[in-house]
Amino acid sequence: MSITVVGSSAFDDIETPRGSRKGIVGGSCIYFSLAASFKTKSNIVSVVGKDFPRKTFKILNDRSISTDGLIEQEGKTFSWGGKYNSFSEDPVTNFTNLNVFESFSPSIPESYKESNSILFLANIDPVLQNKVVNLYHRPRIIGLDTMNFWIQSKRKSLIKVLKRVDILTINELELRLLGRKKSLNDCLNVVTNELGIKYLIVKRGSGGSLLVTKKAFHWIPSYPFCDVVDPTGAGDSYAGALFSSLDSSATINTKSIIESMVYASALSSFTIEKFGVENLINLKKKDILRRERELRKIARV
Amino acid sequence: MSITVVGSSAFDDIETPRGSRKGIVGGSCIYFSLAASFKTKSNIVSVVGKDFPRKTFKILNDRSISTDGLIEQEGKTFSWGGKYNSFSEDPVTNFTNLNVFESFSPSIPESYKESNSILFLANIDPVLQNKVVNLYHRPRIIGLDTMNFWIQSKRKSLIKVLKRVDILTINELELRLLGRKKSLNDCLNVVTNELGIKYLIVKRGSGGSLLVTKKAFHWIPSYPFCDVVDPTGAGDSYAGALFSSLDSSATINTKSIIESMVYASALSSFTIEKFGVENLINLKKKDILRRERELRKIARV
Repeated sequence: MSITVVGSSAFDDIETPRGSRKGIVGGSCIYFSLAASFKTKSNIVSVVGKDFPRKTFKILNDRSISTDGLIEQEGKTFSWGGKYNSFSEDPVTNFTNLNVFESFSPSIPESYKESNSILFLANIDPVLQNKVVNLYHRPRIIGLDTMNFWIQSKRKSLIKVLKRVDILTINELELRLLGRKKSLNDCLNVVTNELGIKYLIVKRGSGGSLLVTKKAFHWIPSYPFCDVVDPTGAGDSYAGALFSSLDSSATINTKSIIESMVYASALSSFTIEKFGVENLINLKKKDILRRERELRKIARV
Repeated sequence: MSITVVGSSAFDDIETPRGSRKGIVGGSCIYFSLAASFKTKSNIVSVVGKDFPRKTFKILNDRSISTDGLIEQEGKTFSWGGKYNSFSEDPVTNFTNLNVFESFSPSIPESYKESNSILFLANIDPVLQNKVVNLYHRPRIIGLDTMNFWIQSKRKSLIKVLKRVDILTINELELRLLGRKKSLNDCLNVVTNELGIKYLIVKRGSGGSLLVTKKAFHWIPSYPFCDVVDPTGAGDSYAGALFSSLDSSATINTKSIIESMVYASALSSFTIEKFGVENLINLKKKDILRRERELRKIARV
């Protein structure tokens, strides 16, 4: 089995209360696929410039991550600069240089078109997310992440692609923007009923994550008291871990999603304890399993 | 059975993103005792000025809250003004007028000295908390709440009283200040081992609350998606509900504390949906029970 992930590959400049880094490798599909690599193979669909390090390709390939769909184009890699004033707020964006991403038109390599694999549409333009869904061959399930910018600027395209999506992972602010109702409960109704999302996962940072279906809520805590250094990539690592765990589940239902959420909470807690992908690259499987066991107890799963 | 609570009675000026109120009744022991009143009797030890409304005394007494120890003194009631810039941060204090609280020296009325009742030391000067513990006759358990200001300015007194405390309810920032270690895990160790707190409850707002003992962590979510209007009194209502539920438990152990935390999460979620004590006064028992049932499912308790 495998997962195909479409998203950004980037250089990030990051400032947090714990320090700063310039020009480090990031991007949603990099975080996602590294996080997924502890449980399954993944296939990247993305674009980079000629400046993207060969070393990163090697790191990805060494972890059974296919870069057949990670296209190198003339020009510079997408880059983003952001500053976290505190760890309880979203970062302030200092700059966004689309570079090669501006003309990105995703295509799916033949080698990725294994049937019954999972498709994850990371946070990119919903127009591209729609395009990928149409190109892809019968995925087992489709997951999607998005952000306030796309919800506000490309609402129509986003709602179109959401009709095809099984599992949506967003945060509380994005839920409000998507639901466009005053009360969060009404927003949940919009998403699970009107937009037809079967499994909605609301990410709440240190407040854990909540699985919302038409029938019930289920809460999974985040790993308590992790030592946050850089929250960048937390959501993408969470999604990578979640879908890698689902990829190895025989059935995808509320029970297997709850179990995968515990694993995802455990794994993504490591990502944010170092800058960028540093911890994802150096992490040992046994460390993830230890936190997963602890979380199972805390969460009574 | 009953609970004796020592704390502040106040007039509050409150500004939040959802509106503002001036001169409304508040204070830790008012929130605490109203929250506790759905399950048990409580006894207030506090002081007010001649300006404190007779109507509030009546509201309290009608709910089996004894005001024998709520002393009326010449002068004005303690008042506090604060502004919440967002619901994820602590409020900014605009003013604190101690007024009659400046000369407050708590004494315990004879009618409160029933043995085997619970004693709760709400957030006041640790010097006064020590004094009350010494005055009180064999409480069943002692609970305590405090804040950054006292941890920093009266550390010695606070640590002295903590040696007598069974259940401590604080937030994450206060835990850091109390533990004085870089990592939160080390702070937890300081509190549960060096300071000897048997049951530490870390309140995390929308992130729920965590019970920490020497042996394990247990997480209870907050009620998801409540419509926050004014967070004032959330912690005091939580404590009031928690201890009222423990008061009706035959034994006080990890299991009964977890169950009481679910009830406390449910009840305190109502407090913050209106300004001040408005919701606590108008709340129906069946509404609390409904949220408690929902939370039990979400939390797998």
